[in-house]
Amino acid sequence: MAHIDLGLDEKQFPGINGPMRFRPETAAPLNALAEALLHAPHPTLTAGERELIAAYVSGLNECDFCCSSHSAFAAAQLDEGMTLVQQVRADPQTAPVSAKLRALLRIAAAVRQDGRKVTVELVDAARAEGATDLEVHDTVLIAAAFCMYNRYVDGLGTIVPADPAAYDVAAQRIKVNGYGQSS
Amino acid sequence: MAHIDLGLDEKQFPGINGPMRFRPETAAPLNALAEALLHAPHPTLTAGERELIAAYVSGLNECDFCCSSHSAFAAAQLDEGMTLVQQVRADPQTAPVSAKLRALLRIAAAVRQDGRKVTVELVDAARAEGATDLEVHDTVLIAAAFCMYNRYVDGLGTIVPADPAAYDVAAQRIKVNGYGQSS
Repeated sequence: MAHIDLGLDEKQFPGINGPMRFRPETAAPLNALAEALLHAPHPTLTAGERELIAAYVSGLNECDFCCSSHSAFAAAQLDEGMTLVQQVRADPQTAPVSAKLRALLRIAAAVRQDGRKVTVELVDAARAEGATDLEVHDTVLIAAAFCMYNRYVDGLGTIVPADPAAYDVAAQRIKVNGYGQSS
Repeated sequence: MAHIDLGLDEKQFPGINGPMRFRPETAAPLNALAEALLHAPHPTLTAGERELIAAYVSGLNECDFCCSSHSAFAAAQLDEGMTLVQQVRADPQTAPVSAKLRALLRIAAAVRQDGRKVTVELVDAARAEGATDLEVHDTVLIAAAFCMYNRYVDGLGTIVPADPAAYDVAAQRIKVNGYGQSS
């Protein structure tokens, strides 16, 4: 049970969905940020790659709801599906992703710890693999944003879905509609 | 110098201002979130109190730009000014704030570490001092949001203003216009 009375059936609105219904004034920019970072057209990073960064960071933060959600959202939008998501979550350095994405995941892991952990060397390494300024920017902000979303979900003590199939249902909705539509 | 080429004079746009100009698509929801959390009318928490939570969390995260900014924004909107901000930053448990705000600051410090550090006991203690569900919600999200903003600013290696008076100039703008206007 959540730490506050969300005024709804938590089983019907698990994870971030409850607080978002409780406080629509903050839900709007939170959804708009996720849309801009994860679903809106991007010149070089696919939605699947961006969701992969979100899932990876959420896994490092041990936020069950966000990690399961964004793992499903990534899997639904990657040709390699959940197998690749699990490989990246287990060890991004040996997972079969591009050298560029591997370097970006290293930056994401540093941001998760502390922004000051992002070194010139980490950024230069990403750049050497072809990463653009926009890709570095978006990787930093995706990782930073999930340090927020993860704390929001866990800090309010929200529940996870009883049936894990709920993540796949949400994944299809996100893939098609993005984060513009409230769940 | 920032880790990426922001395409502008960093001295003129220090801290978060550079990345926000670099990527207006994400700046819009980031500003809208700050507006909803820190400046929009609130039934019980003043803008000064909400900025105090932001400054306190940014101080714990040792993010110089955000801490100096939101300390100035809090001071400009609190009757007690910068003296109170410094007392809270030094030790919220002995600072002359209400017992309710003290309990909310304890929740904010827990969120900063990890959302799962927010216990039923911390929330009950805040509730015993009169905190509402909305106040607990907003405290959790302000603390979580600054775990994002702090990492965004530091993860991109942005610079701080050469002249600290810049924070006071920004504080007057925020006090009057809020976060709706780009700086």
